[in-house]
Amino acid sequence: MERRRFGLAVIGAGYWGPNLVRTAQLTEGVRLDYLCDLDISRAKRVLGDYSTVRATNSLDEVLADPEVAAVAIATPAATHLHVARAALAAGKHVLVEKPLAANLSDGIDLVEQAEAAGLVLMLDHTYCYTPAVAHLRELVRGGGIGTVQYVDSVRINLGLVQSDVDVLWDLAPHDLSVFLSVLPDDVTPVAVAAHGADPIGAGRACVGHLTLELSNGAIAHVHVNWLSPTKIRTMVFGGSTHTVVWDDLNPTQRLSIYNRGVDRKTEDELGADARAQTIVSYRTGDMVAPALPEREALRGVMTEFAASITEGRRPLTDGWSGVRVLSILESASASLDEGGVFMPIMTVNENANDFILSEREEANA
Amino acid sequence: MERRRFGLAVIGAGYWGPNLVRTAQLTEGVRLDYLCDLDISRAKRVLGDYSTVRATNSLDEVLADPEVAAVAIATPAATHLHVARAALAAGKHVLVEKPLAANLSDGIDLVEQAEAAGLVLMLDHTYCYTPAVAHLRELVRGGGIGTVQYVDSVRINLGLVQSDVDVLWDLAPHDLSVFLSVLPDDVTPVAVAAHGADPIGAGRACVGHLTLELSNGAIAHVHVNWLSPTKIRTMVFGGSTHTVVWDDLNPTQRLSIYNRGVDRKTEDELGADARAQTIVSYRTGDMVAPALPEREALRGVMTEFAASITEGRRPLTDGWSGVRVLSILESASASLDEGGVFMPIMTVNENANDFILSEREEANA
Amino acid sequence: MERRRFGLAVIGAGYWGPNLVRTAQLTEGVRLDYLCDLDISRAKRVLGDYSTVRATNSLDEVLADPEVAAVAIATPAATHLHVARAALAAGKHVLVEKPLAANLSDGIDLVEQAEAAGLVLMLDHTYCYTPAVAHLRELVRGGGIGTVQYVDSVRINLGLVQSDVDVLWDLAPHDLSVFLSVLPDDVTPVAVAAHGADPIGAGRACVGHLTLELSNGAIAHVHVNWLSPTKIRTMVFGGSTHTVVWDDLNPTQRLSIYNRGVDRKTEDELGADARAQTIVSYRTGDMVAPALPEREALRGVMTEFAASITEGRRPLTDGWSGVRVLSILESASASLDEGGVFMPIMTVNENANDFILSEREEANA
Amino acid sequence: MERRRFGLAVIGAGYWGPNLVRTAQLTEGVRLDYLCDLDISRAKRVLGDYSTVRATNSLDEVLADPEVAAVAIATPAATHLHVARAALAAGKHVLVEKPLAANLSDGIDLVEQAEAAGLVLMLDHTYCYTPAVAHLRELVRGGGIGTVQYVDSVRINLGLVQSDVDVLWDLAPHDLSVFLSVLPDDVTPVAVAAHGADPIGAGRACVGHLTLELSNGAIAHVHVNWLSPTKIRTMVFGGSTHTVVWDDLNPTQRLSIYNRGVDRKTEDELGADARAQTIVSYRTGDMVAPALPEREALRGVMTEFAASITEGRRPLTDGWSGVRVLSILESASASLDEGGVFMPIMTVNENANDFILSEREEANA
Repeated sequence: MERRRFGLAVIGAGYWGPNLVRTAQLTEGVRLDYLCDLDISRAKRVLGDYSTVRATNSLDEVLADPEVAAVAIATPAATHLHVARAALAAGKHVLVEKPLAANLSDGIDLVEQAEAAGLVLMLDHTYCYTPAVAHLRELVRGGGIGTVQYVDSVRINLGLVQSDVDVLWDLAPHDLSVFLSVLPDDVTPVAVAAHGADPIGAGRACVGHLTLELSNGAIAHVHVNWLSPTKIRTMVFGGSTHTVVWDDLNPTQRLSIYNRGVDRKTEDELGADARAQTIVSYRTGDMVAPALPEREALRGVMTEFAASITEGRRPLTDGWSGVRVLSILESASASLDEGGVFMPIMTVNENANDFILSEREEANA
Repeated sequence: MERRRFGLAVIGAGYWGPNLVRTAQLTEGVRLDYLCDLDISRAKRVLGDYSTVRATNSLDEVLADPEVAAVAIATPAATHLHVARAALAAGKHVLVEKPLAANLSDGIDLVEQAEAAGLVLMLDHTYCYTPAVAHLRELVRGGGIGTVQYVDSVRINLGLVQSDVDVLWDLAPHDLSVFLSVLPDDVTPVAVAAHGADPIGAGRACVGHLTLELSNGAIAHVHVNWLSPTKIRTMVFGGSTHTVVWDDLNPTQRLSIYNRGVDRKTEDELGADARAQTIVSYRTGDMVAPALPEREALRGVMTEFAASITEGRRPLTDGWSGVRVLSILESASASLDEGGVFMPIMTVNENANDFILSEREEANA
Repeated sequence: MERRRFGLAVIGAGYWGPNLVRTAQLTEGVRLDYLCDLDISRAKRVLGDYSTVRATNSLDEVLADPEVAAVAIATPAATHLHVARAALAAGKHVLVEKPLAANLSDGIDLVEQAEAAGLVLMLDHTYCYTPAVAHLRELVRGGGIGTVQYVDSVRINLGLVQSDVDVLWDLAPHDLSVFLSVLPDDVTPVAVAAHGADPIGAGRACVGHLTLELSNGAIAHVHVNWLSPTKIRTMVFGGSTHTVVWDDLNPTQRLSIYNRGVDRKTEDELGADARAQTIVSYRTGDMVAPALPEREALRGVMTEFAASITEGRRPLTDGWSGVRVLSILESASASLDEGGVFMPIMTVNENANDFILSEREEANA
Repeated sequence: MERRRFGLAVIGAGYWGPNLVRTAQLTEGVRLDYLCDLDISRAKRVLGDYSTVRATNSLDEVLADPEVAAVAIATPAATHLHVARAALAAGKHVLVEKPLAANLSDGIDLVEQAEAAGLVLMLDHTYCYTPAVAHLRELVRGGGIGTVQYVDSVRINLGLVQSDVDVLWDLAPHDLSVFLSVLPDDVTPVAVAAHGADPIGAGRACVGHLTLELSNGAIAHVHVNWLSPTKIRTMVFGGSTHTVVWDDLNPTQRLSIYNRGVDRKTEDELGADARAQTIVSYRTGDMVAPALPEREALRGVMTEFAASITEGRRPLTDGWSGVRVLSILESASASLDEGGVFMPIMTVNENANDFILSEREEANA
């Protein structure tokens, strides 16, 4: 006897859709029924000549099928809102690519629509499901690096220059969703300054820098770049006791946890003479690279989507996580428009379902 | 018969002084006469038990010695002004560590004093004398990467937290002096935004980010960090035809010149349909790592100092190069105080000997 | 109208079979009809729940199907001979995993059987179809590195300790097939010495070193190791004018072509004094990393298999390439048994269909 | 009052002599009196214009000076024997560059001469004094990697082709002296096979491979190469519980200790079915990179030399360590002459002062 499975349709057969198709077919509890694309020949090409999955170009057909319980949306960003709304209205659970919507307000609407309907709305923040981020999350939130002192992320390579979004909206959601997943609850982004440049005349920023002020006074920096001939994907969480470096392109040593750093001595520890001179000391201890399981992140996404539907619970990267990313991106765009000044980030209070403009502490105080 | 040599005194036997002592002894045309330090035992320790060079703690003695034609100053930054002024007043040529002075105004005064006295005033911008920067300079200024599209520099490691300057004033002079040396004459910094953080309570920024707006609309970014457990020293000059990466920690491949990048097609090249869709194309050509000579940069500094004195000419990194770095640093500090807004950079017009606040084009236009 | 396609069956659903299944489905001209495994549930698991490809545990059924024109064999090494013989006897073209057979004599029999029947017999020497090896082949055979001076290959990582073959038979076929593909026709292996160790008591060598004497006096060395915690896959072809390094784990710089090396001056170039002293000079020129297309090697294997069948020609890695690898492996095993002495390698003269024990020049003459 | 110091003369002002001169001047307890070279102008050039150390071209003068208690010999290899003998005969302690002598017999003579005279005879096996090797020694001899399973060393780069020794005698002493220092007392080299090639016609091997059979059945391999355009200096000690990799060119992670490997299950641990199939299991634990002090190895050499003289004891790398290296090199040369067969290594029994040809266990048993 087969285990119960729910029907899934993948919407969008472009860049990412094929990955969802492949992964869905490998996920227990999921039965892939459709691949839907406005261009049905593209959908057929993705499925190939040997598949029993149906190709269609009719979203209506998919949403009308009572066997379909959920959809995974991998259409262009500008259409996420429309497709997700229709799917929720048809009573389908939704997994959606980042960004959740083209602006914060639309994103909040979607989340509220899903909550009202009792449906799962999940973001495909794929990196949050890598073994490296799972380890980072446990380490940083568990106090394994002490208090967070700085965060630095670099995500650059010769990337696809997008026609509808700038490099910040295209790439930074990866960094921001990981930040939100890894940082402790009491370390939250309160303001953001953004700089960008469009040296090739693409009509939107192709090189971008974000500086986030965190609630504990630390700063987090993100460098995203579509024009770099070299590929770098590193993220550093500097802490008071340890610093952890994630190099996603080093498969044999993705995480390196350094017991190295600079300590400030408190005055009590110092004699009168020393007080005037020595204010810091240096630790240069061992480095540990923890063993990580080899596990495809997207498998984890699909498994979590299936589990949250089956168990009737929120997924790890629920709609609010998408809203929080939108909130930062929107403030970043505003900063870009204002010449790089810090803009406050709206705090999303998901419990009260209301949204408060944070009273931001002065930057660089 | 021995070649004519001029007498040199090194002032300061701390962190960098020993390197000047060693290098001076190897430089043709230079005769090292003194090592001077307030703490004479430190000077003696640096010279060791086998040296004929005189140790002294009296700057006056050094400056009064008519055999001494030049001094090299490696004292703490705050004292550069005083020592350099006294040396110039005594008719000595001066080589000084960065930064030239603690503020722009003092720096300009020094340069004017040297010019009035007809003496060489040279900055020890050591990196400008590396074979890598010499190659970069010829490549970038010679059009070898096309037009400059973006610049990115990272200089991070577990560094000595300074007690008198923040991380920007301590480390960024290296990056800025290289920028000024390598960039074409018509690509100059016009504004700077600075962000910093002091997560260890050191009393000054230990992590810093500079975003420079260049006169051609490109941006240059500098990340300096005293707290990083890993050491990175990379600089990227992205251009319209090539991009060059300088990795100073990779001795066998310091420079990598990529024929890779993103091109925008002009409308003329595109048919009507394509115009709506394809705006960019990608080049993925070969990479060349040019052979570079092995040569110690500080030897080049000392040789240039000797040559500029002997030949009665300006050195490559003359006082104005130090003034230009000060000008950016001062604007950066102002930006830091103002929460990260872009601050214009004073243009130093060395020919007219006057200084013009640049009319800055709007950032992110 | 659909293009003509021939029917293919994949035999073996273990480690490599799934890759053949996936690739076959993507290859033009190929129609995947069966996946055959003694354990039919394993075959079904590989195909998944959405496939129209038939799973079977009956090789006879596959071979009896007139729609099946070819088979791809990915069964355990010890069974290659039996399965390939049966397939050829049934008139099917054959693609077989390395090694072709468990010994040289069986390998030759298979090739002769295929030739007699006018069927394609191709080896899946996957690495020979990588863009890197294609470039290496053109470079080295085209004289781009001058004469070959030495070859060095390292292929180590924590590998699957095999129960039927030692590390030489498991891993070295990769290195040897690339050597044979890349080296010029007049540079051939004439003798081999092998050393091995079994420090974990596995019953067969887990660490192995091969030293090949080449016909031009150069040596080629192969280090294979199942026990290494770090993964290295590099191959160096040192030549008289250039040296090329292939680092298969560096996706952004797989090939590096160095214009560096040591030249011996001929006596004519030297004066009498110099003759006694200076016999060498050093070149330290640029390094070039050529752009390589991104292309999956196994797609190239399958495409070549299909093309050789359709066009009725020998594939690039035909049966004789498998025989040549077997010839070296068999001599290596003999050397291992004899304590590491050099053993001659039988030269396979495919045109005359006879096999000559090479008259080996004395090693290290 | 100054501490007592003994007088030292450095003999040889060529490649390595200047390093000995510099280091000697920094070592407590040592007073550098002379730099001696047949070419006195070279000696003067090394000392420079500011030194109080005497330059001389007379070894006799040096050896006749009663203030000189010790000499450090950095002359060409072929002259080590003559200079060391004369120095010992004059009652001087001796530090000598590797190799100790041009053959084993001469080396033993020297050691015996020193012992008879009660003088220190020390080898400058510099690598043995690096913090990395000190850590390796403690780790491996202390059981930190379990039993030694294999050793692999690669030392290749564009090196100075020597006119008097081949690449094995030039470079392998580094590897062999480290092996002897790091391996446990009960794991000793018993036989060696050597392969070499001279592809540039230099008259001696420029590429070399050594395979050492160790007394516990493991093998150690050394690859040395003067012709490689890339520089690699790695050494791996594979053990039953851990494996440690030393990458001397990675200053921030010289040692990496992996808790990874392959374990064989004993039959007792396995059920009947499993016994036939599963014989190994895999560990993939964390990796630790221990913090190492930054310390120049040659300072350690000089300090140990001074201490052994002052304390009247054997130095860590005494004459016997040089003899043991010679013993392996001589067998390696014999193997090279014999086409690569394993040659037994003479065991040096320093206590009994006699030398036994080891009864070698059969290789590859």
